[in-house]
Amino acid sequence: MQSLNDNDIHILALAGSFREDSLNQALIRAARELAPDHVHIDDLDLRTVPFYDGDLEEAGDPPEVTTLKSAVAEADALLFATPEYNGSVPAVLKNAIDWASRMLADSPLRGKLAAVMGASPSRGGTERAQAHLREILDRAGAHVVDEPSLYLARAFEHVTDGRLTSEDYREAVDEIVTSLDEAVTLDATEPAEAAR
Amino acid sequence: MQSLNDNDIHILALAGSFREDSLNQALIRAARELAPDHVHIDDLDLRTVPFYDGDLEEAGDPPEVTTLKSAVAEADALLFATPEYNGSVPAVLKNAIDWASRMLADSPLRGKLAAVMGASPSRGGTERAQAHLREILDRAGAHVVDEPSLYLARAFEHVTDGRLTSEDYREAVDEIVTSLDEAVTLDATEPAEAAR
Repeated sequence: MQSLNDNDIHILALAGSFREDSLNQALIRAARELAPDHVHIDDLDLRTVPFYDGDLEEAGDPPEVTTLKSAVAEADALLFATPEYNGSVPAVLKNAIDWASRMLADSPLRGKLAAVMGASPSRGGTERAQAHLREILDRAGAHVVDEPSLYLARAFEHVTDGRLTSEDYREAVDEIVTSLDEAVTLDATEPAEAAR
Repeated sequence: MQSLNDNDIHILALAGSFREDSLNQALIRAARELAPDHVHIDDLDLRTVPFYDGDLEEAGDPPEVTTLKSAVAEADALLFATPEYNGSVPAVLKNAIDWASRMLADSPLRGKLAAVMGASPSRGGTERAQAHLREILDRAGAHVVDEPSLYLARAFEHVTDGRLTSEDYREAVDEIVTSLDEAVTLDATEPAEAAR
């Protein structure tokens, strides 16, 4: 029988923007506020990770990369919050994924449960960025849940002082956290079921 | 009448990989070797550009970003050489494009002539990465030529000691450089024609 602490779930939040007023950081903040007590939303600043470089890698992962890979490996699930730059994902997210996807079978991304959401000031609400991000994560071997999804368009109308105010969108964030929580719990409690 | 020097053309090569044995650097090296005397292939190390950050930008472009934007603005055309990481472009390229795409109408990428090529050890030859790259550049307002294209698959068979050896692929690189040369020259000598 598991102890209570073993039921705790750790979700690693990976944001593509680090501005103080970042709309995507507001989404993650909402996820943290709405998560039940046993679900912990952890953070990682991806800006310190150097650009992927095969020569650097061959010399041994830089410490920031080791930290990143450990954080991904130890997380029960990943929660991406992406802005959209030129119709795709920000470099800071792509870079983290590229490092974490190495090396193939040993990659901590392999089979890792993940959810994707995003906020933008535009009408598209990061639709294109999320499409690219899903393709990228899929290629990296992560298991991205199809639903629930969250495309927060015209985000300035729904975020005030870094807080997601719209009840509809808070509910959408809550649903994403719940779905990850349920999927992780299902994996942990029904291994035989899952293996069938 | 223009002086001879005014006929010189500057192509800024932007590589997505900086490894010493980089296959994509080999493509750019080949472009430089094959270019006629009046076509100069310039380099820029994109690794020194910090991750795009709205707060940094608001405080004023960091010096590396100013250098990047000037290099893009002064180039007659851009030549991208991209590896493929997880089915998309490397972060170092995406980051440079995102900075250079700012701010909208003032962006040096706007209307800028560009060509895309790529090399990978796999069978796809960066097909997916180039598809994403074209979408991204298109959104940034660059004018990417459709043809000629170059997808160098199984690149290790065609590159030895950093040199592109295959005659077919050297010809493909030559065609890309020639097409940029011709497009730039056409723009410069026939403005009335182009404006019609």
